[in-house]
Amino acid sequence: MRLLRFQDTNGPRLGAVKGNGVVPLGALADRYPTMLSLIAGGDTALAAVRAILDSTNPVLEIEKVSLLAPIERPGKFLAIGMNYRKHIEEAKRLGQPVPTNQFWFNKQTSCVAGPYDDTDPGMSEALDYEVELGVVIGRPAKHVTVDQAKDHVFGYLVCNDVSARDWQRHSPTFTIGKSFDTHGPIGPWIVTADEIADPHTLGLRSFVNGEARQDGNTSELVYNIWEQIAYLSSALTLESGDLLATGTPDGVGVAMTPPSFLQPGDVVRCEIDGVGAIENKVVAATRP
Amino acid sequence: MRLLRFQDTNGPRLGAVKGNGVVPLGALADRYPTMLSLIAGGDTALAAVRAILDSTNPVLEIEKVSLLAPIERPGKFLAIGMNYRKHIEEAKRLGQPVPTNQFWFNKQTSCVAGPYDDTDPGMSEALDYEVELGVVIGRPAKHVTVDQAKDHVFGYLVCNDVSARDWQRHSPTFTIGKSFDTHGPIGPWIVTADEIADPHTLGLRSFVNGEARQDGNTSELVYNIWEQIAYLSSALTLESGDLLATGTPDGVGVAMTPPSFLQPGDVVRCEIDGVGAIENKVVAATRP
Repeated sequence: MRLLRFQDTNGPRLGAVKGNGVVPLGALADRYPTMLSLIAGGDTALAAVRAILDSTNPVLEIEKVSLLAPIERPGKFLAIGMNYRKHIEEAKRLGQPVPTNQFWFNKQTSCVAGPYDDTDPGMSEALDYEVELGVVIGRPAKHVTVDQAKDHVFGYLVCNDVSARDWQRHSPTFTIGKSFDTHGPIGPWIVTADEIADPHTLGLRSFVNGEARQDGNTSELVYNIWEQIAYLSSALTLESGDLLATGTPDGVGVAMTPPSFLQPGDVVRCEIDGVGAIENKVVAATRP
Repeated sequence: MRLLRFQDTNGPRLGAVKGNGVVPLGALADRYPTMLSLIAGGDTALAAVRAILDSTNPVLEIEKVSLLAPIERPGKFLAIGMNYRKHIEEAKRLGQPVPTNQFWFNKQTSCVAGPYDDTDPGMSEALDYEVELGVVIGRPAKHVTVDQAKDHVFGYLVCNDVSARDWQRHSPTFTIGKSFDTHGPIGPWIVTADEIADPHTLGLRSFVNGEARQDGNTSELVYNIWEQIAYLSSALTLESGDLLATGTPDGVGVAMTPPSFLQPGDVVRCEIDGVGAIENKVVAATRP
């Protein structure tokens, strides 16, 4: 299933995709008012959504619906750096040390944006894109093994790990340069895990104004998704709705010769086979 | 005022300190069911709390109340590294590069623990303490100046930035080693900003089994609280209830000769003048 959030005149609502339309999930609003509560609802919640989808015709055309980030605010928004071999090579050329362990950093949850929202450069003069497969955690995970990890995935989405490269270099932690407001567009929906037979065979691409920039495949992940979940869950509890950005392939703007950063007016498209596409326009920077 | 959360037979409740007692804030539960909603309620909410405190006698003795983390889950839990000069010197000796900008990292919000909760070493063999003044954001802050920053502080609390030093070194981002479950004890309450005339004159100390380990003063901060808020808010929106850990003075266990890490049974006390004290016992590690 494809689960989404959309803007209604009465506020945000949950929905699911059926054909070219959207079936609103208002009938479930008492039990599952938010996507986070629906995710936490597990199999029971998914069965309820399935029942509505099976018995209801779509009432909205998907093209006419204003899509929101499919998760309001995850509890955690973690991202792994340098997790595609060719991206490690381009990062090495830029002086970034090669990690010896999984290299996790945070995007602040306040940077989450919708699949077609504008991207604000803010104070950055070096705005860049990174297409990534996003993993949404379902059942809470603590001390799970690589073999068990799959059972804790609720679904997948497309993520653009928008990066302010100048601010990213302020500190080896990456924290602030990855966390500007609007710099976490996700969507267009969550594809539930049952629809992705193998998440390690998905082509993922990014384009700037239609020009191909990144063209990778999740088969090239250094640490695969199950290894990521096992590692993280050995230290902390991954909770329902937590979001993991699983790394970006080579082809980012900062590694081009000369570097090419995003400018106001640029449109960035990120797409992943079997998941979908998001598209975000860079607007004029908001500055004091 | 001193605002707190405590465990009742019916679940968590909000309260405020009066003398040696606690006045429950149940009368406000419709409007402000959580500490986050009370913080977002701003001056109106604080006036309502004040009215209850003025007209009600405490019904609970503070010593008999089971205190919880005063904020359920902040939206963000950011912490600044190497922000006391003498701590920078001890970190330099351990090979940590001296930062040229504010050095921010995240603790995951899932690591938040109560002021007297147990601390679980988890998979770490190098558990350490860091007493820090915690700042709770009140009015949302974006692009605020150093001069304006004070108006965006709701209050202060004591934080122990518990650190798994072995896992902290897994990555220059610090992310996972700072984020183990139970490694973010905070409290014992939030002291509202009006009660702290100058947060840059507060002595802060930590003790392990009664032995003094850290003894600093917030006057020694490299980047003071207003500079921290101004820097962060130039990149992202600080939201009501967001939590900033403002740095730790020298005297951490990893910098002792030889290094001294926390062991099961150890009790860590962190105290800050005018704010309060928290005390957490290290328990046997939970491992698979």
